[in-house]
Amino acid sequence: MHSAHAVRDLDPVLRRIDENLADSLMRVFELVRIPSISTDPAYAGSCRKAADWLSAELTELGFDASVRDTPGHPMVVAHHDGATPDAPHVLFYGHYDVQPVDPLDLWDNDPFQPAVRDAPNGAKIITGRGTADDKGQLMTFVEACRAYKEIHGSLPCRVTILFEGEEESGSASLKPFLEAHAQELKADYALVCDTSMWDAETPAISTGLRGLVGEEITVQAADRDLHSGYFGGAAANPIHILSQVLADLHDETGAVTIPHFYDGVDETPQDVLAQWESLGQTADEFLGEVGLKLPSGEKGRSILELTWARPTAEVNGIIGGYTGEGFKTVIPAKASAKVSFRLVGKQDPEAIRAHFRDFVRARIPADCSVSFHEHGGSPGIQLPYDSPVLQKAKQALSDEWPNPAVMIGMGGSIPVVGDFQALLGMESVLVGFGLSDDRIHSPNEKYALKSFHKGQRSWARILHALAER
Amino acid sequence: MHSAHAVRDLDPVLRRIDENLADSLMRVFELVRIPSISTDPAYAGSCRKAADWLSAELTELGFDASVRDTPGHPMVVAHHDGATPDAPHVLFYGHYDVQPVDPLDLWDNDPFQPAVRDAPNGAKIITGRGTADDKGQLMTFVEACRAYKEIHGSLPCRVTILFEGEEESGSASLKPFLEAHAQELKADYALVCDTSMWDAETPAISTGLRGLVGEEITVQAADRDLHSGYFGGAAANPIHILSQVLADLHDETGAVTIPHFYDGVDETPQDVLAQWESLGQTADEFLGEVGLKLPSGEKGRSILELTWARPTAEVNGIIGGYTGEGFKTVIPAKASAKVSFRLVGKQDPEAIRAHFRDFVRARIPADCSVSFHEHGGSPGIQLPYDSPVLQKAKQALSDEWPNPAVMIGMGGSIPVVGDFQALLGMESVLVGFGLSDDRIHSPNEKYALKSFHKGQRSWARILHALAER
Repeated sequence: MHSAHAVRDLDPVLRRIDENLADSLMRVFELVRIPSISTDPAYAGSCRKAADWLSAELTELGFDASVRDTPGHPMVVAHHDGATPDAPHVLFYGHYDVQPVDPLDLWDNDPFQPAVRDAPNGAKIITGRGTADDKGQLMTFVEACRAYKEIHGSLPCRVTILFEGEEESGSASLKPFLEAHAQELKADYALVCDTSMWDAETPAISTGLRGLVGEEITVQAADRDLHSGYFGGAAANPIHILSQVLADLHDETGAVTIPHFYDGVDETPQDVLAQWESLGQTADEFLGEVGLKLPSGEKGRSILELTWARPTAEVNGIIGGYTGEGFKTVIPAKASAKVSFRLVGKQDPEAIRAHFRDFVRARIPADCSVSFHEHGGSPGIQLPYDSPVLQKAKQALSDEWPNPAVMIGMGGSIPVVGDFQALLGMESVLVGFGLSDDRIHSPNEKYALKSFHKGQRSWARILHALAER
Repeated sequence: MHSAHAVRDLDPVLRRIDENLADSLMRVFELVRIPSISTDPAYAGSCRKAADWLSAELTELGFDASVRDTPGHPMVVAHHDGATPDAPHVLFYGHYDVQPVDPLDLWDNDPFQPAVRDAPNGAKIITGRGTADDKGQLMTFVEACRAYKEIHGSLPCRVTILFEGEEESGSASLKPFLEAHAQELKADYALVCDTSMWDAETPAISTGLRGLVGEEITVQAADRDLHSGYFGGAAANPIHILSQVLADLHDETGAVTIPHFYDGVDETPQDVLAQWESLGQTADEFLGEVGLKLPSGEKGRSILELTWARPTAEVNGIIGGYTGEGFKTVIPAKASAKVSFRLVGKQDPEAIRAHFRDFVRARIPADCSVSFHEHGGSPGIQLPYDSPVLQKAKQALSDEWPNPAVMIGMGGSIPVVGDFQALLGMESVLVGFGLSDDRIHSPNEKYALKSFHKGQRSWARILHALAER
């Protein structure tokens, strides 16, 4: 039986990962010691050093690896054939650059002198800048490949690796690089390791990312600011008009009222909702952290569904009239607002934009006007919950961790996932082993030793599972 | 018959005014030549010089006049007995200070070298800073008193005069001065000469001034700014809440929806409305000047009723979230608005404030909060349309000008009128001879020679009429 054979092949790889743990720690420490802060030009040399280090490491593992120059920090690209020609081709993505470390005095230890330490809760942690975001995470994949090579002399799938050095500073070079090297980088799907587990016992795959449409609207009434004594009660007030437009965006059930807004929005499958329900996330818990309590969106849906799987209309900024100290009895000539929409499923950003503009125009009095300014648009990303690759990755993760893996959504977007989809026509499987208390971007960043160790084992299991028929 | 006797007495006074016109022009020129710009400390000496000049002028006319020091520019106070003890006692108010004159290069003539010139429309005008606001206006009253004294040796009413020197710079000394000299200044009613005619043929008495309540509200949701990707759809957005509150302020008929808002608001009498209707003011005309067309307030009421006799709720400023260039996907922690109410009739400012706050609080979700900041409050002023003093002044003005006088409202407030009412318990009769094209506060200020001449005759008629039983 084929699957029995496969399990036989995997076990020695997992054992080798266990045996290699101490050495793999020494390797990730080497990488963390390189202060590859991408946003600060003073560290450009360190960024290149990190890229060189990774390229050398991959070359040693038998990859065809190279450092590629960009107008910013270099990319690392590496290729390795799979054991069988019919196994899938995967692109693994991570980033070797890190966030700045100031204020330095809030760190308990030197951010670039990593060590394994005991956390207050008793867990073993690896401390240092980049341990969780993203050096420790990307090394879980590299170490899984190493164990595979050491045991079998091969990898179960054909693997391309892309390590970026500008993720923390805007990824200016990424799109041009993907466009210029689309043929080389295109794989069957991407594996992206820059996300978190649900909790320390429960691995997660992010299967949905909301898209985003940004719009700025300016309502113009009179051709100048007016005195509210002289004109008040007779002249149109653009703040009133704008308030009415914005108030009309939602009905009393919290639903967005723009016609056709929900076109292309599918209901989340019941089994997925049940899975989310079982995670036990409460509104009190989620909102309590920021001083709130009551979910404000569509009624009758859980916090997780609202933030992962439902579209929104949100006013991100508003300004009009006199906003300084004191008071001025003015009826302003204009008022404006920045409005964004989080998109899910097959919602079309440009259709949403057009429907929103129609909705606004219908609410502007005949003697007033409105102008629109576009602030970008990208569709949501939703992997089919029943796709074989997701199911295989889910099973592999469930085999490794105490709790079964959950498929989760993400309220925001991860640009590289959209770029892979738009430029390479490639979906991404987002698996990562970060925890919510890893303090990424903050002082005292850490990565759980268990994440580092079981992360390697998880990737070995996933590569193994993906190669199975 | 008493009234026949009265007319016989008035005619020589009016004739004397006509005869005095050239001399009275020389006198107003003297006053206009004094650059009494109250807001600029460099002109403090000129302000005092203007006060001294007026005090001397009134002394010469037989007033008991004096210049009174204040922490700012001095007041001029003058008293004169009436011919009969049972005639009313009136307080005449005007101000001798003027606005700055820059930009000087936009003036066709030296602002402090007044002259009679021909306007493009053929009318004779007096040019110079302060000719209309308010030196020319206050001198119409002084010259009326002069003619009366020259003909009859007396004045028909007991007259107190108060000339202020800080009207154009905030009137900081006025309230303390009124409080400190309430006994001396209190009269049966005030005559205030700092307003305009309806048009060049139609004199006007301002009988209603709207009051004002200012409020600033701040809606607080989360205890920090949130990322709209992570929290959008679940966390309360204070801009949404604020927009809903502001949108709710008016119903579809344009009426204000705050409970009890219209308590104390009387309907304007039909004959007054008919009079306003006859003035022929159209929405196209009034709003067209500022690029608008459609009245935005309560439906079914004319522009004049809306701006003179109806209360309003107006948002004067709003701010929240990200308002800079570009876009930021933030759900802000708070949003705020400045809201003002124009009051009429017997609307109580503090009751309006309290009802508004209740109205807002009822719309704040239980896990959010709202704070209020007060920005002043003053009631509207409405003289009874049928009061004898108004009827007498109206008839006197109608006798002088081509068209009958109209009783009009004013959308804004004139602080001194509220101060007279609050501190001296005294109503004001607002009569002035300015025209809408006088360019007060702007370069090329002017006053119609006809206003200066017939203004004097108007005051003679009014004083005469007020003294009648």
